[in-house]
Amino acid sequence: MKALVYKSTAKVELQERPIPQLQVPTDAIVRLTKTTICGTDLHICKGDVATCEPGRILGHEGVGIIEEVGTSVTRFGKGDHVLISCITSCSSCSYCRRGMYSHCETGGWILGNTIDGTQAEFVRIPNANSSLFAAPSGVDEESLVMLSDILPTGMECGVLSGKIQPGSTVAIVGSGPIGLAVLITAQLYSPSKIIMVDTDLNRLKVASEFGASATVDSAAVDPIMTIRNVTGGKGCDVVIEAVGIPATFELCQRILAPGGVLANVGVHGTKADLFLDDLWSKNITITTRLVDTVSTPLLLDLVQSKKLEPRQLITHRFKFSEIEEAYKTFEAAAKHSALKVLIEM
Amino acid sequence: MKALVYKSTAKVELQERPIPQLQVPTDAIVRLTKTTICGTDLHICKGDVATCEPGRILGHEGVGIIEEVGTSVTRFGKGDHVLISCITSCSSCSYCRRGMYSHCETGGWILGNTIDGTQAEFVRIPNANSSLFAAPSGVDEESLVMLSDILPTGMECGVLSGKIQPGSTVAIVGSGPIGLAVLITAQLYSPSKIIMVDTDLNRLKVASEFGASATVDSAAVDPIMTIRNVTGGKGCDVVIEAVGIPATFELCQRILAPGGVLANVGVHGTKADLFLDDLWSKNITITTRLVDTVSTPLLLDLVQSKKLEPRQLITHRFKFSEIEEAYKTFEAAAKHSALKVLIEM
Repeated sequence: MKALVYKSTAKVELQERPIPQLQVPTDAIVRLTKTTICGTDLHICKGDVATCEPGRILGHEGVGIIEEVGTSVTRFGKGDHVLISCITSCSSCSYCRRGMYSHCETGGWILGNTIDGTQAEFVRIPNANSSLFAAPSGVDEESLVMLSDILPTGMECGVLSGKIQPGSTVAIVGSGPIGLAVLITAQLYSPSKIIMVDTDLNRLKVASEFGASATVDSAAVDPIMTIRNVTGGKGCDVVIEAVGIPATFELCQRILAPGGVLANVGVHGTKADLFLDDLWSKNITITTRLVDTVSTPLLLDLVQSKKLEPRQLITHRFKFSEIEEAYKTFEAAAKHSALKVLIEM
Repeated sequence: MKALVYKSTAKVELQERPIPQLQVPTDAIVRLTKTTICGTDLHICKGDVATCEPGRILGHEGVGIIEEVGTSVTRFGKGDHVLISCITSCSSCSYCRRGMYSHCETGGWILGNTIDGTQAEFVRIPNANSSLFAAPSGVDEESLVMLSDILPTGMECGVLSGKIQPGSTVAIVGSGPIGLAVLITAQLYSPSKIIMVDTDLNRLKVASEFGASATVDSAAVDPIMTIRNVTGGKGCDVVIEAVGIPATFELCQRILAPGGVLANVGVHGTKADLFLDDLWSKNITITTRLVDTVSTPLLLDLVQSKKLEPRQLITHRFKFSEIEEAYKTFEAAAKHSALKVLIEM
């Protein structure tokens, strides 16, 4: 089969690989129909993810048709249309019992990281019973593949950890795909304001179209003063970090109201300053989270009932044979006005 | 009257001052019977608290007898025995309506900070209806004065923000008075382990007597390795910072389990490093809080029913005329094996 392989730093390549086989009775083999590229795949390409070694087939998002299941797989069978979760979970370790599937002792984020992933014609899914979701009828595959990772990540790491409530004032720092996924799912809770912050005017324009109540171009104005002015000097009840660098995390602290929540979504490669001298008395909460995909069932319901249409995040479409070009487009996202890129098998 | 005044950096002095008078109908005047000194008073003496200017009568803790009330004070009258809350609250601004009395728009921590405090024979208490508590019958005043600040601070900023639950593994970094207040109130929730960390052997001995399940002398052993060993390599579910310096805050991050809560209690004068490169994916929560004194009613019930006996935190007793010496003892707490010092009027 064809598979996209992480070859070495800054280098991915479409290669010929053997079709994966069942290894244990809890495995399933899925034939991919759609996949996509995640910002985390770019982090791997830069050599930022030490657990992912050269030779690995990348990708942790996808939809497809089950080709074969092991004898212990009871919830799915050959021919079933499935959504692949970016998080693989055994459903029985101490973390899974608490619903913290991201930290499953034998799973978590392993696809396209420590085992071969979904940017291939076929993929082996361990613990298939609890790592796949049945595709609901009537849901288009383009919206479905957005539920592998980006929508539940925005919902859980941003909206749920941030405790967005009706009437909340919300700022989302970073208007890339993940910031926009937070913006889309935040509106489920009817906040009074959602302020998007970025330096990319196209992304801010998209944010306005997707429902942001205000946008702040942090290259043109002081975002701290601007947001304080819009919030009566207090700052925001909920601030979401959706970039992953110290400067934006530090900005988030400066626009947080007393009693507020700073929910981190970004993937960080270095430490950041925490302004405890200012924050120690402010009754604030800071959260971090790797998506647990606990929200996937409800997101599937929302997509099926057309309350959400996450395919709107897709700006570019490629055939699988063009995936190397898709990586180049996604890497230069600003230049191409790219958000999510869809790969069709 | 006699009053302890912050004169200038590193200098407090017992001075003669006029007895405070009612200024508005919501005020009460309280004649103090007991007061104490807080670590925050020492911060003021060091010049760390910019809002507190020289000439201020210090103190935000105390019990006493009401001398006089304004016409709008309906809950208390002359002769009532009362506990003074360290937090003054109007009970009607947007923060008070949310129970975040610490950020009351006209109150919060103002006693012995922006208005004259309780280290005096008399004190004026604004918004007396919602800033005083009736002393329950049968409670000794020494236990009572520990409910002005230190017990609710340990309970709210440590135990409640840390979400300690039955079975939790807890580490408390700092075994001074506030760390011990966390230790005492943590046991109300039956955690499976409470590990106290400090460099002062006397304080660790006291922690053992107060119910710690293990103590770690971080001057003698590596606290990170020790705590990881005791917790099966995972770290603790709840870590409480009860010192207020970057080194201890940073240690707390290193001993926190995935899914855990780091509750900050310490007063910080500088920023600290946040190890986001490690923590971004660990599903952790960090909280800060200035005590709201929302737990004071339940702590009063617990003290009255003898489930808590916070007078055990008091190691030294002084007459009010000796308060300057009490400051010296509290400043050199390690040398004197001092925890809380009681001042009797």
